[in-house]
Amino acid sequence: MAATLAELARRFGGRLRGVGDVEITGVAPLERAQSHEISYVNDPKHRRLLGACRAGAVVLTEADAAEYGGNALIVEQPQLHFARIAGFLHPSPTPRPGIHASAVVDSAARVSATASIGPHAVVQAGAVIGEGTEIGAGSYVGREAAIGAGTRLTGRVWVGERCVIGKNCLLHPGAVIGGDGFGYAKDGERWVKIPQLGRVIIGDDVEIGANTTIDRGTFNDTQIADGVKLDNLVHIGHNVRIGEHTAMAACVGVSGSVTIGRRCMFAGQVGIVDHIDIADDVVVLGKSMVASSIGQAGAYSSGIPAERAEHWRRQVVRLQQLDELARRVKQLEKEIAKLNEERS
Amino acid sequence: MAATLAELARRFGGRLRGVGDVEITGVAPLERAQSHEISYVNDPKHRRLLGACRAGAVVLTEADAAEYGGNALIVEQPQLHFARIAGFLHPSPTPRPGIHASAVVDSAARVSATASIGPHAVVQAGAVIGEGTEIGAGSYVGREAAIGAGTRLTGRVWVGERCVIGKNCLLHPGAVIGGDGFGYAKDGERWVKIPQLGRVIIGDDVEIGANTTIDRGTFNDTQIADGVKLDNLVHIGHNVRIGEHTAMAACVGVSGSVTIGRRCMFAGQVGIVDHIDIADDVVVLGKSMVASSIGQAGAYSSGIPAERAEHWRRQVVRLQQLDELARRVKQLEKEIAKLNEERS
Amino acid sequence: MAATLAELARRFGGRLRGVGDVEITGVAPLERAQSHEISYVNDPKHRRLLGACRAGAVVLTEADAAEYGGNALIVEQPQLHFARIAGFLHPSPTPRPGIHASAVVDSAARVSATASIGPHAVVQAGAVIGEGTEIGAGSYVGREAAIGAGTRLTGRVWVGERCVIGKNCLLHPGAVIGGDGFGYAKDGERWVKIPQLGRVIIGDDVEIGANTTIDRGTFNDTQIADGVKLDNLVHIGHNVRIGEHTAMAACVGVSGSVTIGRRCMFAGQVGIVDHIDIADDVVVLGKSMVASSIGQAGAYSSGIPAERAEHWRRQVVRLQQLDELARRVKQLEKEIAKLNEERS
Repeated sequence: MAATLAELARRFGGRLRGVGDVEITGVAPLERAQSHEISYVNDPKHRRLLGACRAGAVVLTEADAAEYGGNALIVEQPQLHFARIAGFLHPSPTPRPGIHASAVVDSAARVSATASIGPHAVVQAGAVIGEGTEIGAGSYVGREAAIGAGTRLTGRVWVGERCVIGKNCLLHPGAVIGGDGFGYAKDGERWVKIPQLGRVIIGDDVEIGANTTIDRGTFNDTQIADGVKLDNLVHIGHNVRIGEHTAMAACVGVSGSVTIGRRCMFAGQVGIVDHIDIADDVVVLGKSMVASSIGQAGAYSSGIPAERAEHWRRQVVRLQQLDELARRVKQLEKEIAKLNEERS
Repeated sequence: MAATLAELARRFGGRLRGVGDVEITGVAPLERAQSHEISYVNDPKHRRLLGACRAGAVVLTEADAAEYGGNALIVEQPQLHFARIAGFLHPSPTPRPGIHASAVVDSAARVSATASIGPHAVVQAGAVIGEGTEIGAGSYVGREAAIGAGTRLTGRVWVGERCVIGKNCLLHPGAVIGGDGFGYAKDGERWVKIPQLGRVIIGDDVEIGANTTIDRGTFNDTQIADGVKLDNLVHIGHNVRIGEHTAMAACVGVSGSVTIGRRCMFAGQVGIVDHIDIADDVVVLGKSMVASSIGQAGAYSSGIPAERAEHWRRQVVRLQQLDELARRVKQLEKEIAKLNEERS
Repeated sequence: MAATLAELARRFGGRLRGVGDVEITGVAPLERAQSHEISYVNDPKHRRLLGACRAGAVVLTEADAAEYGGNALIVEQPQLHFARIAGFLHPSPTPRPGIHASAVVDSAARVSATASIGPHAVVQAGAVIGEGTEIGAGSYVGREAAIGAGTRLTGRVWVGERCVIGKNCLLHPGAVIGGDGFGYAKDGERWVKIPQLGRVIIGDDVEIGANTTIDRGTFNDTQIADGVKLDNLVHIGHNVRIGEHTAMAACVGVSGSVTIGRRCMFAGQVGIVDHIDIADDVVVLGKSMVASSIGQAGAYSSGIPAERAEHWRRQVVRLQQLDELARRVKQLEKEIAKLNEERS
């Protein structure tokens, strides 16, 4: 895709400064951008790169524009603006509509004529594949599952029976939607499986990372609302509900029956115990363990930064004696109080 | 599947109270169950739902039955009873026996006539597929591997050469059984691979979650005993041995050459260092790191619950000075002792 | 593969002691090795097994050889030596060259005549597959991606468009190379995707574990240097660069834009925050969180070993009051100082 800078300004807004008819064919980082590419400044650290910048245009704030002589698109949120321009200039390749000869599509599946079913994909009976939807190479759509319009299963994505995925979603390779939840009853030392009869329901504009797994509910459904973004290797247990626009970084694990609000953010490797509720606008920092419900917005943490191992080892020994140390301090306080009393 | 309440009582035990010939066609949660569905009460919190319950029957304890007027199946362990009934009423769909036209099955593989080999599955030479076994869409069974009777590889499961999986197991999509263990010798700065020549041997009634990985042993075999249940995204290193009926929640990582006893339970994101032994009946709580052998049954932990980030940050600073704090307390104790001595 | 002990000594070095023409057909652990197998002693704990050892030969140090009467290959680094011999005696099976009938290979892909393309593999237009390269069953190589000579994609490996993998690499099942990085700009409560336009570039002799994911860069490339070894279920974020011969155990998560030096080692479940630099020869112990740049070689840690849960619970309570405890100690110090002052 290509467009003049003036066209980009018209389409996405922002104040154009400089030559409007320079043709822009792509995006690039400041230090590498050429005369037909557009770049942006978001981080004050990158301002120093403006001096040597050879980009066809730069998206930046009013303040940063003052320090730059080249073609500029002046906006309030350069990263957001730039993301939109980049998406426009570099659209995802549209797969050719049609069903690949090697795909196995049940005659009782309903596949839109504009959908693309890739090599070795499988679509089972009763499944519904929407308009412009891509079922990439090796992907699997189970019985009576539904994949919304414009959604892309990039490749080797697995969607179990009766699960529902909304519109304009993007699922990366290896994602597994609708495996069984981990539910058993105890019979002496044995585990007896509780059938997992619910579904996974995913809203619109959801992105799901590579090898991420979302389990189906036990009786009710596991629900992922519109706009949720999950990174790679995330685990979502059965009966979990995640609110709109919540984002989770890689390797987060969410146990069963957790309800999470809107606009939350979870950093990498966070773990969340089962059967708790997390309010809207909660941010949980890296590697923390959420062990009870969180009723209020704000940032939460229990991660410990690594330090020199030999130093840390000493702290660990003390940590394991901490209760005793606290008692000793209490004892000291009593003795001092006594001494002070005697003195007065 | 459908059955009268009386038939369910006969088949699974429990004391029937009310109308025995009500036909039950499925299970549902208390708040949603209709007149042809059966539900259960396990958690005291759910008792309050009994008032408005419209289920055809409810499985519950004697005590809870006293508060309920409808049809009841009175038992000692409602969840266990219910799990069995649910499994009976909602059996896994039995795949049609036979080999899908798109599957690639080596002529030197032995596949039971009652087995089902799905679309795009691959079964290599010398592999043995048991009676009623399902090799789901896109699954792979390597040379001379054996998959027991009644076992289901739901879809896209990978089983490496010579690995053995027992009877009535359930493997979820993306599980990888028998990838190489992570073993190298050092040659200066380079790593030289130690060939991983062992197998993975899995017993009967084992369930393995989506995208879980179990590495083959180096010379000996990695062994997963009967009844083990592993959730999603679990990693089991080479030469590990796991005892009967042990369960691991999602994202647990077990390093190489660990031996784990029977009936253990590991909560989510637990990590276990290599070359240690863990006794029977050990429970490890969420996000803990097992850093040395555990010789005694019981609960173990090292996880820290998240709290307000600004509060936690202060604790972290103090934690990194904990050894020094302990020394200061010791010094105070000395000084107080001196003061007390002088006083007396 | 088989060889006499003398041939092994000639080929791999070491001082032969005993019968040189004993034929060795494989490797085995000390306690199981038979007269045609070779074993080794690396760990002092294993010396005691030498007495009953029936191996055709044992690789060991001069010191250990003194305690053993059988055929010996005396070397300085027995494990390294043994790894080489094991690799020679048990080579990976060479797949038959050629393209399986069920594979889908675009006519615009360049596939070496000596490469092997397995069942249900997909190779897209413009992709280049090197000499002796194996694209295992169900693997996917995207448009214009390149896979070097002698590299093995064991099975169901996914390599996205334009990604480059070097020579003699080994990728285990389920690995995803070149999924999108996790990058968004905020637009009010919504996330706007930043297109991920970079590639993943992997060097030679790299091993990548089962279900590990490596994201493509945003504008620049994610880079994995020669000799890097990644275990299973590792996540590598976009724009990460990892130096030569660095190794990561299972379940490590590396956030975006991290630069890691050479010869580093990361134990299981380590997490690394984004946008930091880690020097050469850094070792990070299990479950630690690297929260800031590490400029110096050495060992780092923040993991806490699990202990009895009831004991640990008390420490956690104290940990959450640690800042207050430190203040109390400071107060005590003041009071003692005052008492001491008065006394003198």
